[in-house]
Amino acid sequence: MDQRISLITLGVVDLHRARSFYERLGWRGQEVEETVFFQAGGMAVVLWALDRLAADCGISARERDGFDGIAIAHNVRSAEEVDAILAAAEQVGAVITRPAARTFYGGYAGVFLDPDGHAWEVAHNPGFELREDGTLVLPDFAGS
Amino acid sequence: MDQRISLITLGVVDLHRARSFYERLGWRGQEVEETVFFQAGGMAVVLWALDRLAADCGISARERDGFDGIAIAHNVRSAEEVDAILAAAEQVGAVITRPAARTFYGGYAGVFLDPDGHAWEVAHNPGFELREDGTLVLPDFAGS
Repeated sequence: MDQRISLITLGVVDLHRARSFYERLGWRGQEVEETVFFQAGGMAVVLWALDRLAADCGISARERDGFDGIAIAHNVRSAEEVDAILAAAEQVGAVITRPAARTFYGGYAGVFLDPDGHAWEVAHNPGFELREDGTLVLPDFAGS
Repeated sequence: MDQRISLITLGVVDLHRARSFYERLGWRGQEVEETVFFQAGGMAVVLWALDRLAADCGISARERDGFDGIAIAHNVRSAEEVDAILAAAEQVGAVITRPAARTFYGGYAGVFLDPDGHAWEVAHNPGFELREDGTLVLPDFAGS
């Protein structure tokens, strides 16, 4: 199994609401058969009905009332960019669950939940290289 | 907000068990401060204690007894590769929640849950370009 991810599908209750949220943050997607696809670097982010996604995974859906068990991070190049994205997300309906603050690793980050409760950390981490094309490259922790 | 994801963090109950699972599937990670980092194409997959991840997101953790609300897909180049990966995953402790089968879009896919219940779809989708480097490129649905 290669060390990579091809798509992440976020289960959503209201496709239109979810798509609008991401598009108001500047993303552009394509909708096909009640599914929205966003090209996201070398992978794709997909929005699809939560109950259909659960069924498609062979899992029984249930009320989601808490934490996904998964968090997505969006790294940026400055603390100012973290503040700007969190403010933009809040303006389009996100709930800020962790206001932006300095982190123990010398970075700056905050967390918002999208309209379906999916957690996004927006972070500036000077220890993780972020290339021109948005690619993130982990450091060699042993060597650093 | 750029259209990309930098990291995905999977909350885990037992870090050693989770790391072993992915390493037995051939992944190689680095552990630092009870966190395991895998470079995964242009992003990173991270394993971290579920309760700490929830707290870090400003969300109260709870018993996770069902569906994350998120599914991760790993696309490959043939149906045979789907079968091989699902078999390998099952052998190292994954639960197959959807056995591999033909899909409505003319592909072939199945789903397994990792030891912490995170859903991975392993799919061969001839309609989604998978480049040499593992990058996935969505089609132009309108033009196709």
